[in-house]
Amino acid sequence: MFSNDARRRSSSACYPIMPETLFINCTFLPKAYGNLTHNAYLRVKGDTIAETGDMAGISIPPGASVIDASGKLLMPGLINGHNHCAMTLFRGLADDLDLKTWLHGHIFPAEARHVNPEMVYWCTRLAAAEMILSGTTCVADAYFFSAMSAQALSDCGMRAVIGHGIVDFPAPSVPDPRKNIETVASFIADWKDRDPRITPAVFAHAPYTCSPATLRKAKELADKTDVRFFIHLAEGQQEMEMIIDPQGTSPVRHLASLNLLGENTVCVHSVWLDDHDLDLIEKTATSVVTCPQSNMKLASGIARVEEMRQRKITVGLGTDGCASNNSLDMFKEMDLFAKIQKVRQQDATAMPAQSVLQCATTDNAKLLGLPRLGHLKAGYKADLIVLDLATPRLTPFYNPDLLVYAASGADVHTVMIDGRIIMENRKILSFDLEETLEKITFLAHQVRQAR
Amino acid sequence: MFSNDARRRSSSACYPIMPETLFINCTFLPKAYGNLTHNAYLRVKGDTIAETGDMAGISIPPGASVIDASGKLLMPGLINGHNHCAMTLFRGLADDLDLKTWLHGHIFPAEARHVNPEMVYWCTRLAAAEMILSGTTCVADAYFFSAMSAQALSDCGMRAVIGHGIVDFPAPSVPDPRKNIETVASFIADWKDRDPRITPAVFAHAPYTCSPATLRKAKELADKTDVRFFIHLAEGQQEMEMIIDPQGTSPVRHLASLNLLGENTVCVHSVWLDDHDLDLIEKTATSVVTCPQSNMKLASGIARVEEMRQRKITVGLGTDGCASNNSLDMFKEMDLFAKIQKVRQQDATAMPAQSVLQCATTDNAKLLGLPRLGHLKAGYKADLIVLDLATPRLTPFYNPDLLVYAASGADVHTVMIDGRIIMENRKILSFDLEETLEKITFLAHQVRQAR
Repeated sequence: MFSNDARRRSSSACYPIMPETLFINCTFLPKAYGNLTHNAYLRVKGDTIAETGDMAGISIPPGASVIDASGKLLMPGLINGHNHCAMTLFRGLADDLDLKTWLHGHIFPAEARHVNPEMVYWCTRLAAAEMILSGTTCVADAYFFSAMSAQALSDCGMRAVIGHGIVDFPAPSVPDPRKNIETVASFIADWKDRDPRITPAVFAHAPYTCSPATLRKAKELADKTDVRFFIHLAEGQQEMEMIIDPQGTSPVRHLASLNLLGENTVCVHSVWLDDHDLDLIEKTATSVVTCPQSNMKLASGIARVEEMRQRKITVGLGTDGCASNNSLDMFKEMDLFAKIQKVRQQDATAMPAQSVLQCATTDNAKLLGLPRLGHLKAGYKADLIVLDLATPRLTPFYNPDLLVYAASGADVHTVMIDGRIIMENRKILSFDLEETLEKITFLAHQVRQAR
Repeated sequence: MFSNDARRRSSSACYPIMPETLFINCTFLPKAYGNLTHNAYLRVKGDTIAETGDMAGISIPPGASVIDASGKLLMPGLINGHNHCAMTLFRGLADDLDLKTWLHGHIFPAEARHVNPEMVYWCTRLAAAEMILSGTTCVADAYFFSAMSAQALSDCGMRAVIGHGIVDFPAPSVPDPRKNIETVASFIADWKDRDPRITPAVFAHAPYTCSPATLRKAKELADKTDVRFFIHLAEGQQEMEMIIDPQGTSPVRHLASLNLLGENTVCVHSVWLDDHDLDLIEKTATSVVTCPQSNMKLASGIARVEEMRQRKITVGLGTDGCASNNSLDMFKEMDLFAKIQKVRQQDATAMPAQSVLQCATTDNAKLLGLPRLGHLKAGYKADLIVLDLATPRLTPFYNPDLLVYAASGADVHTVMIDGRIIMENRKILSFDLEETLEKITFLAHQVRQAR
């Protein structure tokens, strides 16, 4: 039933792609490591940035859609490197608990009871709403019933890399774990070429929920289909004790001995790494996504990001699912990321604002295999956000550091993804937010009843 | 010139105190340690809460102003325990630098050049705008030209405790440091009974900028006039090396030996305390205000808040000035406060959301000497905020933990201070925000020119 509704709404009539859109009179930050340009314009043709330049040299063809961005700042859309979108339903369900109690006492039981295709569809839409409203244009999702996540994010107009979950026990969309690899293979085949904004991937949950044999098969599938291989790794200090049939003396060495590291592997969390682990990650060109707020809230620890960056390991930034954060605002995540690294290093110059912006834009793009993102220049995808600078918290605006240390997702005025205006003046254009909030209210009522 | 303008605007005509205001159909959080009540009302008479109750028993007298808060949450206004309001002008001027370089290389020189009465007046208004828009109803300010800060906060309709700065070198409003005590005495006399929302206080900057003799005189003044005595203490690890004529082996022992600790003393930051320091603070009923974001951004360290709370030391929460944060949003501060304490303690149950809310409301009220704040019940001051819950990031809303872990200042819809509606539907009613932003743009231009 709901999927018919969904298909109807997935029509792009309400947010058409324009032949040409011009943002004029902007303050402009082309990329993380860049200077601000004032009095600039940016031209979008189809789904791609065609040109940027100074207002003095602009030409406005008839029929172009013109957006006056006076007093506003144009920057690349933020990329969320790790999320479990559908878990919005469990936001705040279980706070102030350690990882084990949180997961086994609350989250796993709630998932067993409440996760179904309809839940995944609507709760992913809720996540999309929160992300769009806070300036995230692309997300790496990792969950189950991934066809539903993919459909939801496609319908909402977002860009996404979607890893279908694999575990060795019965999971919401894979009741028979013997079918976990074939389920994911089928999801990848279905979505590989369906929507240019949606990229399927493999998400092996963790070495403590997947056997070595399963991990190997999952990685083979990722290699064969040329998709990303995501895995939670070394999140908690005691993870080695929980790993199924360990091959090595640390979670990273376990993966290395199974030949699972490599350019298409993205290790998420990766808090508890020693120097040898870092060497292995560096040598194999494996990437890491750090989720500092989740790691702090669950008291997992603080990732060694400065050491990773010194070794030229690509480090991305993600919020994690909002049951363990509890927010999907990448502006908040960036701010806290810079600050936690400084205090960990006892060095206020550590993890400067520009590096944080780089993690959340170009570095996330690189590790997700989406190189034409994160930089506003000709030939790149038109995924961009417009911030309203006429607000007390962004006044004065001496330099772009404020995007990390002062901006909030609420300052995002307009969002363009793939050349389409998805949100304007804080109103989502690509779908009906009210309807989504109503659906979640209904689903949350069921969660309350079951407690 | 500007003060005439200011006086004109300080008329309360645009935000009159109503004889009676009723908030109806609310979800209601009376205090930090409380349960949510649904379908509630709250009655305000003059500047005070007269009554709260269930909608079933409400009576609405003719002439009452009625605010329908359906789908919204009423809670106590947040209190910012430490701020240097006028430093909004230096927001983002010098990021990613250590405390010493930041202070001596950037902030002190900028202050010497740009701080004057007009700057303090307008930049404090900017801070007020940011605070009101993010749900802060009361602030503890600590700066110079405090009569200007007091006037600005009074004009903006905020409640404030304002500590006039004392240092032993020429300061913006005290060119001759021999007159520092008398300047502050005169400020206290002027503002002691001028506006019931404004409470003057003494702010001895730090033991490394004030000699023992100055500190003693400052504390005597605070005692004699029955006001709060604020001091920056043990912010950085090397502070002992900078203290003028140390009397003791730690900053706290230095203060103790000068007899400066006590019930009216509020130590700000207090990151580097050993167990004996904590004993001294506990024994003297001294309070502490922690500023976690500032301490992280400047890599000062992480305060031992759990140990303080175990000893029943009253701990408040503040943003610090926004040159070292760079935000005045107490919702963001609360979130990060909970998370940094959890990761420091390696315990996800540490500093739970309710304790954080308590620090930012009732505990801040207590240490500022404003006991009728922080709790929405009959007889308490009508300082309250109304949050819009119909937003993705607060959906679902299972419990008030989300106020710490998910809410943003941008979710604040309406603000009442002292019985007056100061902000409604995100529009500030008590003063002209556009005019303030224009003034700051002009002042910031001067800062840019001088670099």
